[in-house]
Amino acid sequence: MSEEKENIQFELTPGLVNQVENLIESRNDKALHLLLDDFHYADIAEILDELNLDKAVYIIKLLDSDTTSDILTELDEDIREKVLKRLSAKEIAEEIEELDTDDAADIIAELPESRQEEVISKIEDQDHKAEIKELLAYDEDTAGGLMAKELVKVYDTWTVAGCLRRIRGQAEEVTRVHSVYVVNKQDKLVGRLSLKDLIVAKNEQKIADIYISNVDSVNVNEDAEDVAKIMSKYDLEAIPVVDDNQTLLGRITIDDIVDVLKEEADKDYQLAAGITQDVDSDDSIIELTRARLPWLFLGLVGGIGAFLIMEGFHNVFEKYAVLFFFTPLIAAMAGNVGVQSSAIIVQGLANDDVKGSVNSRLIKEMLLAALNGFILALFLFFFVWITKGSPTTALAISASLVIVIIVAGLIGTFVPLFLNKQGIDPAIATGPFITTSNDIFGILIYFWIAKMILGI
Amino acid sequence: MSEEKENIQFELTPGLVNQVENLIESRNDKALHLLLDDFHYADIAEILDELNLDKAVYIIKLLDSDTTSDILTELDEDIREKVLKRLSAKEIAEEIEELDTDDAADIIAELPESRQEEVISKIEDQDHKAEIKELLAYDEDTAGGLMAKELVKVYDTWTVAGCLRRIRGQAEEVTRVHSVYVVNKQDKLVGRLSLKDLIVAKNEQKIADIYISNVDSVNVNEDAEDVAKIMSKYDLEAIPVVDDNQTLLGRITIDDIVDVLKEEADKDYQLAAGITQDVDSDDSIIELTRARLPWLFLGLVGGIGAFLIMEGFHNVFEKYAVLFFFTPLIAAMAGNVGVQSSAIIVQGLANDDVKGSVNSRLIKEMLLAALNGFILALFLFFFVWITKGSPTTALAISASLVIVIIVAGLIGTFVPLFLNKQGIDPAIATGPFITTSNDIFGILIYFWIAKMILGI
Repeated sequence: MSEEKENIQFELTPGLVNQVENLIESRNDKALHLLLDDFHYADIAEILDELNLDKAVYIIKLLDSDTTSDILTELDEDIREKVLKRLSAKEIAEEIEELDTDDAADIIAELPESRQEEVISKIEDQDHKAEIKELLAYDEDTAGGLMAKELVKVYDTWTVAGCLRRIRGQAEEVTRVHSVYVVNKQDKLVGRLSLKDLIVAKNEQKIADIYISNVDSVNVNEDAEDVAKIMSKYDLEAIPVVDDNQTLLGRITIDDIVDVLKEEADKDYQLAAGITQDVDSDDSIIELTRARLPWLFLGLVGGIGAFLIMEGFHNVFEKYAVLFFFTPLIAAMAGNVGVQSSAIIVQGLANDDVKGSVNSRLIKEMLLAALNGFILALFLFFFVWITKGSPTTALAISASLVIVIIVAGLIGTFVPLFLNKQGIDPAIATGPFITTSNDIFGILIYFWIAKMILGI
Repeated sequence: MSEEKENIQFELTPGLVNQVENLIESRNDKALHLLLDDFHYADIAEILDELNLDKAVYIIKLLDSDTTSDILTELDEDIREKVLKRLSAKEIAEEIEELDTDDAADIIAELPESRQEEVISKIEDQDHKAEIKELLAYDEDTAGGLMAKELVKVYDTWTVAGCLRRIRGQAEEVTRVHSVYVVNKQDKLVGRLSLKDLIVAKNEQKIADIYISNVDSVNVNEDAEDVAKIMSKYDLEAIPVVDDNQTLLGRITIDDIVDVLKEEADKDYQLAAGITQDVDSDDSIIELTRARLPWLFLGLVGGIGAFLIMEGFHNVFEKYAVLFFFTPLIAAMAGNVGVQSSAIIVQGLANDDVKGSVNSRLIKEMLLAALNGFILALFLFFFVWITKGSPTTALAISASLVIVIIVAGLIGTFVPLFLNKQGIDPAIATGPFITTSNDIFGILIYFWIAKMILGI
């Protein structure tokens, strides 16, 4: 492994954290600078996540604001909130000055409302201040909430040489230049050019003659998830954002989209596991309880439902106790099949590849569930027959299993499709929601069919 | 909605698919060109995914290979396989000529081994052929499997002017230039420059004086997921790939990483739902069964285990039938808690933010489970007391619920941590695996504790 690690060397070891802690305690600022100045800000943020608040704030106040502003953007959200509480409005404004507008607006948006105005008023660069204020007005789940104002813009009337000369100034403020956006006199987006195109072009050519007019863009009100889908579908590394009049407002870069995709995937995964809020393993027990308890409570209610159903069938017990012993199996199979079906639909919806009508989906799922159910029921049939010696009981239990699996598959398919049609996130339909409802339906169907076959 | 959609206009409507089908049937190639030439290749791929094989192949043969090669990379994998079967080795080689080396190697790697050699032998561009062959030698889950050979490379001895002139040639073959990589005489990576840096620099400056020597790179054998983590942690849009001697071999771009992250998230989500193979909702019933049945079978075995436990306690039934009616509730809660705990750990491990010792994790989970369990048990206690009139039964059931939840939480926490330590993907520990084992443990503990409290 050591040879594979040589290129990206950083590793967060307890020894390193310890070393930093000791240097802070002995107020050895020189050694801290020597140690930390070579690290990437994302690595320093990882170290800070491990320190106590006093020490983290010490480092933030020690290092230069061009580094610490980046560190702040990478810190764990909970820790950032605490660190910012310990900084004055002036100090936060100094960090904000160093950041691109999108990161700056994100950090300000996290502050309590009362502090937001105060911090903004302390920003000295008036252009930066105005741009940040503009960004704060957009919903964070839209293109406007993702975009940065930093971009390189040229007019279609310029020449390549003039353009190169003039974008030098703009480019210095823009960390990464993906594309040069071409606008007309009214600042409307008309096309784009890559820096490569500019370098390859001849100096005297007009921008109007060389730009690519077929430029993708998104409206400032577009949903953030849709922007992510567009950018990953078309393999775009940046996309310009325009208003309804096609006026160029900003640009979104792929690194922000990577974050959107990760958050979305994490959220869906947690919903499937019955965790409602965005929590991670290091959150407090209270936060974790708040995210987990509601779904567990749903499971409790479902379990009470199953209890009531079984109690309703209790007079069957004397003769067919064995039926009751198989209820956990029936409930488990109903739950598992439901989760499988719903997960495939939820994922298909997220990737936009659920095609065809709801009916054809349901028919397919029915066939699939029938096939799976039949294979499983065959095993169960022989198991019950051999251990219990009664082919009728074996038939009753295994036949109901097939029906339960089919119904579970249909519910698992239908519910997310239905929620999606209603404009509700179908991801909530996986996990506890589907297992609980399938437990109840499964057990009800099971007893009902078993009774019928056994003629009780 | 219409105003939000104006910028990215493409929408895959049945009408559009129909129109394409009709034009193919009437062999109206001119109209097909007129219709399709304006679409992005990713959009044409979506249309092709909807056509039958004959029609899809017709379009591939109709359009120019610079478009169709890109369409091929975007097609659904199953459909691409079928389309490639219908193309001759020569035709595939012509598509390959148009593609970047990484996409070319990916497509060739999907072909049956017998055809791979044949297709490669038909590639006319000898450099392209050699590069593709080199890439095919790397494992697809490594940096080598992700990288492309296309990059812009300059020697540290060049001047800015000479450099600009000479990279013009290289840049024409490279679709997107993120960085210019600086190498020394031995072709070892020594630094990088952005095009922006080159544009901003003065013509007579030496590359050696202006390049950034602090360049991130990954070893060609680095795991693909680790590359994805590095690039998203450091917000990199491209990263150079080197061998053990630091020789520059290729580069990986962020769009490939977006794909790796999405595949990884999809795989984990499916594992959590009990789906083992990479399937999507449009796969055949046989493929879906193969992905789903193994986990269902595991559930069946678990259910039989629960049956055997309950049968072992059957002599308790006459007096305490109510215990049996609560087994689905117990099993459901054990399963839900287990899935929640394991999901948080699996996600934490994936994001590298599970810190601290296994013991401290287990203690935290125990406290969390105890808190959740106590709240839920309180409800259950009153429910059973009120409906059944027996506080002892109510106590027996609700006290066992607390213990079951704690044990379920501990199993859900321990198993993924253990698997991860053993080098096994912890994602398999969520979903059916944990629900099944927790069903069995839960029911066993439940009867055992209830018996103890009831003094049976």
